[in-house]
Amino acid sequence: METLSELMIKAVFFDIDGTLFDSRKLSETARDNAVRAMIHAGLEGDKGKILASLKGIIQEKGSNYERHFDMLVEKFGMKGRADIVAAGVVAYHDTKISSLEPYSDAIVVLTKLKEKGYVLGVISNGKSVKQWEKLIRLKLGNFFDVVHISESSGKEKPDPKLFIDAMDAAKVAPENSVMVGDKPENDIAGAKAAGMLAVLMDVQGVKDKRGADITIDRLGKLPKVIKRLE
Amino acid sequence: METLSELMIKAVFFDIDGTLFDSRKLSETARDNAVRAMIHAGLEGDKGKILASLKGIIQEKGSNYERHFDMLVEKFGMKGRADIVAAGVVAYHDTKISSLEPYSDAIVVLTKLKEKGYVLGVISNGKSVKQWEKLIRLKLGNFFDVVHISESSGKEKPDPKLFIDAMDAAKVAPENSVMVGDKPENDIAGAKAAGMLAVLMDVQGVKDKRGADITIDRLGKLPKVIKRLE
Repeated sequence: METLSELMIKAVFFDIDGTLFDSRKLSETARDNAVRAMIHAGLEGDKGKILASLKGIIQEKGSNYERHFDMLVEKFGMKGRADIVAAGVVAYHDTKISSLEPYSDAIVVLTKLKEKGYVLGVISNGKSVKQWEKLIRLKLGNFFDVVHISESSGKEKPDPKLFIDAMDAAKVAPENSVMVGDKPENDIAGAKAAGMLAVLMDVQGVKDKRGADITIDRLGKLPKVIKRLE
Repeated sequence: METLSELMIKAVFFDIDGTLFDSRKLSETARDNAVRAMIHAGLEGDKGKILASLKGIIQEKGSNYERHFDMLVEKFGMKGRADIVAAGVVAYHDTKISSLEPYSDAIVVLTKLKEKGYVLGVISNGKSVKQWEKLIRLKLGNFFDVVHISESSGKEKPDPKLFIDAMDAAKVAPENSVMVGDKPENDIAGAKAAGMLAVLMDVQGVKDKRGADITIDRLGKLPKVIKRLE
């Protein structure tokens, strides 16, 4: 019988957004609900145009900016309408909280890997408290032995140092570690530069996989893929 | 038959926090739930001491500060534990949202006053979007004809100019207006200086009522009190 010490892979590290949950769909739903609520509160304009404008503002200012909706309302000629801004903020936040859930197969996969004795970790870019909030709301926080987030670490994907710090904290070597992520540049290129195996979680069919060892289209396939890598 | 134009009082203005909902109880519950969650996540210390420390930090830094829980966790020797901070943030925000509700008699009173033809308004200190968020979550936003918040107005209670601006927006004179609030200095002294009638909503029995015309211990008494003032 095979024991853990003979396995090539000892640790599996995960990205959060887009890997453990469908962040793209969640953001789309949240934006859609926010715009609906703002129109209901009196914002005047074509829904499609308002949505496109909001998407542009979020892309331009980044997701941690605080005044997306103020800018949007101003852009549609209703500057100072705090009631409309607040309607958008409430709908957006409520959606981001109530609709935040792991990919349907995430808990089964993490449970299976944990039972098999793998060290489980998170390597994520973002603000530490915000990323931990997601893990807590996803009810996944307790699965992970190490959680490395760029803000606390001072290094950011694709910097291989972030990956190496996480492996050091987990006391595993790169050749015994797999990174699972959805962003080819950040997750895959970064992990490969750190000497890890890398599994691309690719729902959309990206062209440049940045040297991923294996591509999966859903988390459920991960346990078999790890066996195949070994 | 008496018609509205013959009445002395034409408009009733309300403060939000502590007047339309029990902000003190809500904050206490939120802090309590946050500290429980942080202890559960690994924060070490006496619960009473942690709570007292959190209360002190919030008083010192103000309620709109973003890093109360970071400071608290640092104070108890666990700096950098983003998981504990996030556990506190999640519990705090979830409580502030799920337990936010109007005083049990608020909707009945506002409905009654609206049916009788009074102009209804809000005069509140705070950030515009944050105060509007409360009105929306309290499901009270649609009751009010005018909402005046200090951030948008550039004036702050007890400055009588904030009250006068609100009355101008509502097209009512001070002698036809009542302010209802729970803070003697901000709500009562400010309203009196603006020439309004002032009703102190006083749950705790404050000593210096700052010249309030009438004191009530719950909103349900307001319709009768307004009749008495007329």
